[in-house]
Amino acid sequence: MEVFGALDIGGTKTIAGLVTADGQILCSEQFPTDRANCHAHLHFCRQVLDTILNRYGGTLRGLGLTLPGIVDPSHSYLVHSAYPAWNGQPVTAMLQRAYPGIPIMAENDVNACALAELHFGYGDRYSDFLWVTVSTGIGGAVVCSRKLITGGAGFAGELGHIKVEFDHPLRCPSCGGCGCLEAHASGTALNALFCKTVTAHPQLLEALGKLNAEPDAKGCALLAQRKDHYAMGCFEIIGTYLGRGLSAGINLLNPQAVILGGGVAKSLPFMYNSIQHMLQQCVHPNLLPVDVVETKIGYQAALLGAATLVMK
Amino acid sequence: MEVFGALDIGGTKTIAGLVTADGQILCSEQFPTDRANCHAHLHFCRQVLDTILNRYGGTLRGLGLTLPGIVDPSHSYLVHSAYPAWNGQPVTAMLQRAYPGIPIMAENDVNACALAELHFGYGDRYSDFLWVTVSTGIGGAVVCSRKLITGGAGFAGELGHIKVEFDHPLRCPSCGGCGCLEAHASGTALNALFCKTVTAHPQLLEALGKLNAEPDAKGCALLAQRKDHYAMGCFEIIGTYLGRGLSAGINLLNPQAVILGGGVAKSLPFMYNSIQHMLQQCVHPNLLPVDVVETKIGYQAALLGAATLVMK
Repeated sequence: MEVFGALDIGGTKTIAGLVTADGQILCSEQFPTDRANCHAHLHFCRQVLDTILNRYGGTLRGLGLTLPGIVDPSHSYLVHSAYPAWNGQPVTAMLQRAYPGIPIMAENDVNACALAELHFGYGDRYSDFLWVTVSTGIGGAVVCSRKLITGGAGFAGELGHIKVEFDHPLRCPSCGGCGCLEAHASGTALNALFCKTVTAHPQLLEALGKLNAEPDAKGCALLAQRKDHYAMGCFEIIGTYLGRGLSAGINLLNPQAVILGGGVAKSLPFMYNSIQHMLQQCVHPNLLPVDVVETKIGYQAALLGAATLVMK
Repeated sequence: MEVFGALDIGGTKTIAGLVTADGQILCSEQFPTDRANCHAHLHFCRQVLDTILNRYGGTLRGLGLTLPGIVDPSHSYLVHSAYPAWNGQPVTAMLQRAYPGIPIMAENDVNACALAELHFGYGDRYSDFLWVTVSTGIGGAVVCSRKLITGGAGFAGELGHIKVEFDHPLRCPSCGGCGCLEAHASGTALNALFCKTVTAHPQLLEALGKLNAEPDAKGCALLAQRKDHYAMGCFEIIGTYLGRGLSAGINLLNPQAVILGGGVAKSLPFMYNSIQHMLQQCVHPNLLPVDVVETKIGYQAALLGAATLVMK
């Protein structure tokens, strides 16, 4: 059996896995990312890959990596990330020595998710879409006519930094600017919003306690599932800001769909109405309706995306 | 000599012309657009084209049309415009009878401007850009990796309807929504803003009178050229909103440049600082700087664009 190796190297954790040509994840293994030492981390990744390759016995046809930042156009190294020790390191060349003759490519994680969606997910339905990760931060990728848009310098997709609030903006933890979508609608923003809500309505602490949950984004989702008024209100606010940010991209690019991934996207049902309400208000009527859906490829999207990079 | 016929059919006026293969406009003639009768108008266009073809004596190698609305993907007819009598009319087929064997294609006017820029203007410098017409309204076109982005249904580029004001929005005359870039930064918006300024500061009427100018967008530009404080203030406000709208597109698409056309773009020097100031505030630092320039192909951009459609 032919298999494709995949490394989803995130800022905190790395997932190594094997994927079949039809997009099935055979196995995956998770471990912390060594942000301080790229070389040592890739050596460890290689050991994990070799172990699972031995266990599953497939023929390795390619190896793809996703990285948390901007990858150069030759798909060989990180140009820009939050981890200085990784920037500029020739990651594919370092792995190539261990896997001679095997195609190896790297890509930004959100871009890889969009490619995986195109090949194994809603690509069967949409040729033009925005792929948006709503997690700790907010990242985006743009697919037009089944092609990934990279931009003049490879930085396209910074949907998280579109301004959604001019008069009462929050500071963006990632870029330092004000009023960014990421500052108002990310998991971090939901955390802060729900925390503030719990402080104002301490009776929520009791409800959270019963669920063994904390006053954070996860706790907010748990309470919303139980139809708690305040928790649902938080998701409505997040959805309104998401709607504002997505509208700009829809007006500009006329996608058929917005596809959401990342932890917060699991709560799409609590945000769906406020997102669509904002699209009605902020998108030119000619460009509506736009489908807003949760990713079809699940929460190992980036791992699948890594493998997709080296499939023909 | 080989020539390409070009028809820039606008909502108010039509320009017919002949263009050489290297993008020189040999001649052009302007006349009103018959919005009520597509067939009669095309018949008249044909007469004008035949007259100038006889006068210049070239060999017609193709005929391109620009239309003020959404053109279908086969480049044959208007799908959606403000002129019901034109929607769905097979414009290229109607002209084909008069010019058998000659390639004929139609395209949205702003898209055609962007294509002309790519082939005969700043395409020598930029592979990824936003082309923005700032005129009565605001229209946009998106070029990524030297390709025009059309979107899922051909409606991409509605930059004029990106929201730039949430708390004090103006009503958009074109889509009926609130806070659109077009409502805050078009020629129509400048007209209204300057009119209000003149009402508040009636001494401006005297200055306008000396220039034989009216209290409208043109008068504002004339006073700004004479460094009038209030007129320059109006352009600063327009530039600030343009900066907000452009920022969303820049964050999403990482273009190297924004290229401005249309009447208001002639006043770019009075808006330049406020546009760039807004980009500094609203665009992720990784994506800066972005060049903001006036079109290189001048104010017959759409006519040149029409001819570009049928060039190899």
